[in-house]
Amino acid sequence: MSERVLVTGAGGFVGRHAAQALVDLGYEVHASHVEASPPLELPNVTWHRSDLQSRTDVHDLVERARPTTLLHLAWYAVHGQFWTSAENLQWVTASLELVKAFRELGGKRLVIAGTCAEYAWSTNDPLLENHSEIRPSTLYGVCKDALRRIVEQYLAGTDLTWAWGRLFFLYGPHEHPDRFVTHVARSLIRSETARCTHGRQVRDFLHVSDVGRALAALARSNVSGPVNVGSGEATSLAMVAETLQRIAGSGAVELGALPARADDPESIVADVRRLREEVGFRPNFSLEEGLTDLIGWLRADGVPR
Amino acid sequence: MSERVLVTGAGGFVGRHAAQALVDLGYEVHASHVEASPPLELPNVTWHRSDLQSRTDVHDLVERARPTTLLHLAWYAVHGQFWTSAENLQWVTASLELVKAFRELGGKRLVIAGTCAEYAWSTNDPLLENHSEIRPSTLYGVCKDALRRIVEQYLAGTDLTWAWGRLFFLYGPHEHPDRFVTHVARSLIRSETARCTHGRQVRDFLHVSDVGRALAALARSNVSGPVNVGSGEATSLAMVAETLQRIAGSGAVELGALPARADDPESIVADVRRLREEVGFRPNFSLEEGLTDLIGWLRADGVPR
Repeated sequence: MSERVLVTGAGGFVGRHAAQALVDLGYEVHASHVEASPPLELPNVTWHRSDLQSRTDVHDLVERARPTTLLHLAWYAVHGQFWTSAENLQWVTASLELVKAFRELGGKRLVIAGTCAEYAWSTNDPLLENHSEIRPSTLYGVCKDALRRIVEQYLAGTDLTWAWGRLFFLYGPHEHPDRFVTHVARSLIRSETARCTHGRQVRDFLHVSDVGRALAALARSNVSGPVNVGSGEATSLAMVAETLQRIAGSGAVELGALPARADDPESIVADVRRLREEVGFRPNFSLEEGLTDLIGWLRADGVPR
Repeated sequence: MSERVLVTGAGGFVGRHAAQALVDLGYEVHASHVEASPPLELPNVTWHRSDLQSRTDVHDLVERARPTTLLHLAWYAVHGQFWTSAENLQWVTASLELVKAFRELGGKRLVIAGTCAEYAWSTNDPLLENHSEIRPSTLYGVCKDALRRIVEQYLAGTDLTWAWGRLFFLYGPHEHPDRFVTHVARSLIRSETARCTHGRQVRDFLHVSDVGRALAALARSNVSGPVNVGSGEATSLAMVAETLQRIAGSGAVELGALPARADDPESIVADVRRLREEVGFRPNFSLEEGLTDLIGWLRADGVPR
């Protein structure tokens, strides 16, 4: 009999890929959705309607799905607002209820999505789990960090193993059109000039389907504690924009056209040794391949002209 | 018109004193209770029935009481169980709901009870807010610490000021009979031998009515962030037991009769400069006076013989 996994946020940007990757790994995949009907078709995924903000719903969901593994990705994620929204508090609450129900109903393996925003962003060194300074400066980062601290202590000494996938910079199909990679890509394929800041900011980019696969691999592993989910590659925004321009073959990139934010960190890059060596994960997409995939998807799905 | 304060946990060991102290300071005091009827009589306190574990109840409570000041003391506190109980998670949730409702409904001043268990207990130096290492080792300590982190970020940049009273070691009337001070006192006034460990553990003791007064003073001040609530005095358990024996004039103290826990910290003492100098608080009770009060109360209220 196959293992049962419950994925929250399976309708989201990352969740759909994680759910699919878990199906591919042989799991019986259950997913939660809050809307009246499932947000998308996912082959071999069983959807359950559940409002994770409701204690009763959370308990019922875990009772119905009876997962041995829980991959908890759901969180407030509205672009431009998630950093500071009070909704972050409610997602701490929802997550605590979910973890508690999962433990009480016999769960064995837990993976939760964390964020690179838990780290202090004042260093240019690659960020290393259990070593780099933890100093979130946003409500989103503080709430994820606080949740992780509680989960760690709550599960200490139990036989429920847990890992915490710290997500870095994601891009790919279905990304919000105002986010950097998709915004630039859309401008270029409309043959417009993508106006950028100086572009020297260095980030760690990973294609969203690889992020989903990495989280699925982490769920199947027995690796414990925080694990960075990134490419481990330091890529400047200028490099991303110029690569997109080359792939698109249209439009132009204008660096320095916009002022950079004064507090914009120079470098946010993951040390991915845990993900590579302990989890054994390898991405499918190089940056070039991932950006090519994005451009293809944007062209196929139609970009407003 | 007097300021309105809402006190949660006002029926508890500390809360009753804090509520009374706030009445004495001229506040219009509102208090919440979850039981069918108010847990005790408190002159000039208006009780509201509310289950703080219910989001609806929390919102209704804040709407009804409409406090400008909130002193949040309610938490899971069952002796011997509160350090590790999963109930700690639910009190993080309840506290987040309460703080959110208070902010959204126009609250101005927030004080929450924290704990000395937020600090690393590996040092023998007096523990100093914003300086000593924060490293809680229990679920209770981790949950309080996580809550404080979230509250700090959630309220940053708002005009709602907040403080966090880190409670050290309390004693006094209505303390659980199995806790150290009351246990020894009860043995002595029954003319029994109080069997103790070596007694060299050093702690910071403050009479519970002074703790309540300190929290009330903190609520009325505009001091911000964590503030230790203790006496600032390093007192060994042996000194407490021997002082109790002298006051009781009966029974005996046998040090070394019980094994000390291997991980029992040598010293947990507050640096109380913030409480003394910034809040301007002075205790009413010296240790000798406080222990005399306890012995008197135990004798008057009757100890099982």
